Amino acid sequence: MNVEDLRTLIAKAEFHKFLKVELASCDADRGRLTLKLPFDSAYTIFADAGTYHGGIVASLVDIAGAMACTLIKGHATPTANLRVDYLKTPARTDLYADGVAQRVGRSIGVADVEVRDADGTIFALGRGTFVTTDPNPPLFADR
Amino acid sequence: MNVEDLRTLIAKAEFHKFLKVELASCDADRGRLTLKLPFDSAYTIFADAGTYHGGIVASLVDIAGAMACTLIKGHATPTANLRVDYLKTPARTDLYADGVAQRVGRSIGVADVEVRDADGTIFALGRGTFVTTDPNPPLFADR
Amino acid sequence: MNVEDLRTLIAKAEFHKFLKVELASCDADRGRLTLKLPFDSAYTIFADAGTYHGGIVASLVDIAGAMACTLIKGHATPTANLRVDYLKTPARTDLYADGVAQRVGRSIGVADVEVRDADGTIFALGRGTFVTTDPNPPLFADR
Amino acid sequence: MNVEDLRTLIAKAEFHKFLKVELASCDADRGRLTLKLPFDSAYTIFADAGTYHGGIVASLVDIAGAMACTLIKGHATPTANLRVDYLKTPARTDLYADGVAQRVGRSIGVADVEVRDADGTIFALGRGTFVTTDPNPPLFADR
Repeated sequence: MNVEDLRTLIAKAEFHKFLKVELASCDADRGRLTLKLPFDSAYTIFADAGTYHGGIVASLVDIAGAMACTLIKGHATPTANLRVDYLKTPARTDLYADGVAQRVGRSIGVADVEVRDADGTIFALGRGTFVTTDPNPPLFADR
Repeated sequence: MNVEDLRTLIAKAEFHKFLKVELASCDADRGRLTLKLPFDSAYTIFADAGTYHGGIVASLVDIAGAMACTLIKGHATPTANLRVDYLKTPARTDLYADGVAQRVGRSIGVADVEVRDADGTIFALGRGTFVTTDPNPPLFADR
Repeated sequence: MNVEDLRTLIAKAEFHKFLKVELASCDADRGRLTLKLPFDSAYTIFADAGTYHGGIVASLVDIAGAMACTLIKGHATPTANLRVDYLKTPARTDLYADGVAQRVGRSIGVADVEVRDADGTIFALGRGTFVTTDPNPPLFADR
Repeated sequence: MNVEDLRTLIAKAEFHKFLKVELASCDADRGRLTLKLPFDSAYTIFADAGTYHGGIVASLVDIAGAMACTLIKGHATPTANLRVDYLKTPARTDLYADGVAQRVGRSIGVADVEVRDADGTIFALGRGTFVTTDPNPPLFADR
């Protein structure tokens, strides 16, 4: 899967009309990518403080982790589980999510995600398991 | 914290202008509550299939878990970490998130969340750790 | 898989010569089982206080979760990931681990485990993902 | 906390008479350490194949993560929760667990652990939350 395919895949998701996440870079061979989320007060708990809602950070982890596995497999790799450790609350800043596939097997893959700002301050550590079996027949109904 | 206080707290979050999550019921003494999320195609990956984005489900788990601990403590209990297991992808249905505080200590609390439809079909299991120390001074900068 | 097969499987593991975990009961159709671990000071951090080591509790979660999925599938279901929330440190007491398969699909299963004493005091909540694909060819080298 | 204090602390745990884990190195200022576990068939599922039991790997993650936070704080930091992703089953090999404190706050800390062999092959990724509040009064009964 190349960078344009991945960009198209990310752009297609309906929720991403709200969560305007962009593919900043990717390395398909190594299963690495960086997403960028430009700050928008719509993503916050408190608009005045500009502090991000935990659900937005979790969404970034979900997308970056799944896409890291998808890069390697070349097909959809639905999220089986997701874990996010919140280290520090980001406020009024663009976010970057660096995703990397740690291992991609026949049944499942594991990917790590760091959520940070442009300066490298890490706000959250994410990890997830993704289903890597062939999606034909579709996996959504019975993983 | 009573039901009206909790309803007000949930309504205040800026992100919840998009994620129109409502407090369906709560039992403050037991640290239990149910959130309702009416279906909206803006929450989906594929608008035509109506399949929910994983980030929306994770957001529900985050809110329901934090609010379960907040009910017991009477003050904000920021999310330390969040885990979501996706069992089945919900599609075109209102979602309910049942949160329950499993244990609330001096430093941290643990809450469980089930995400289901009105018929009781479970789509995701969530669990999280929440910071329960007094938020004065504010916890956000250094948990 | 019946109760005798499961008992044999548990007894075979080399580590279980030390961790003398016993199958207390099981319901193969529902993917439920209870393990019992009789207290032994060899399982503790501090022998005098009799407080269990976290690794022993994690081991119980691992075994109970994997066995719950194995009951349903009838073959080995290796652990993909494991999560344990420690609510309270058990001391000088026999432990029971109740495992239940929450969902068992073609690729993965999810099981929950509660670790408690005979009176029902819960010490830890566990959850894990288990690989449920057929183990022929063997899964260990490449899940 | 210096290397000798940490070595003493690890040696004191009763369970470690069985799990003969050794402190290979540590950097107290950075909250980093490496544990070594010499292979012993007592740690396996199948003695003939020499494949490690998941509970042994989880125990290493627990110890390395807690000790990384303890290095920074200078006092006990009990495990609040633990997560282990099993990438590959180690067999007949000494194991090393590299623990690093990712963030240590007033209430909780987060540490990462990699379990590998001497050649750097990674078998498991671990992460945990540890209670960092002062242990006087003791935290064990009510975290």
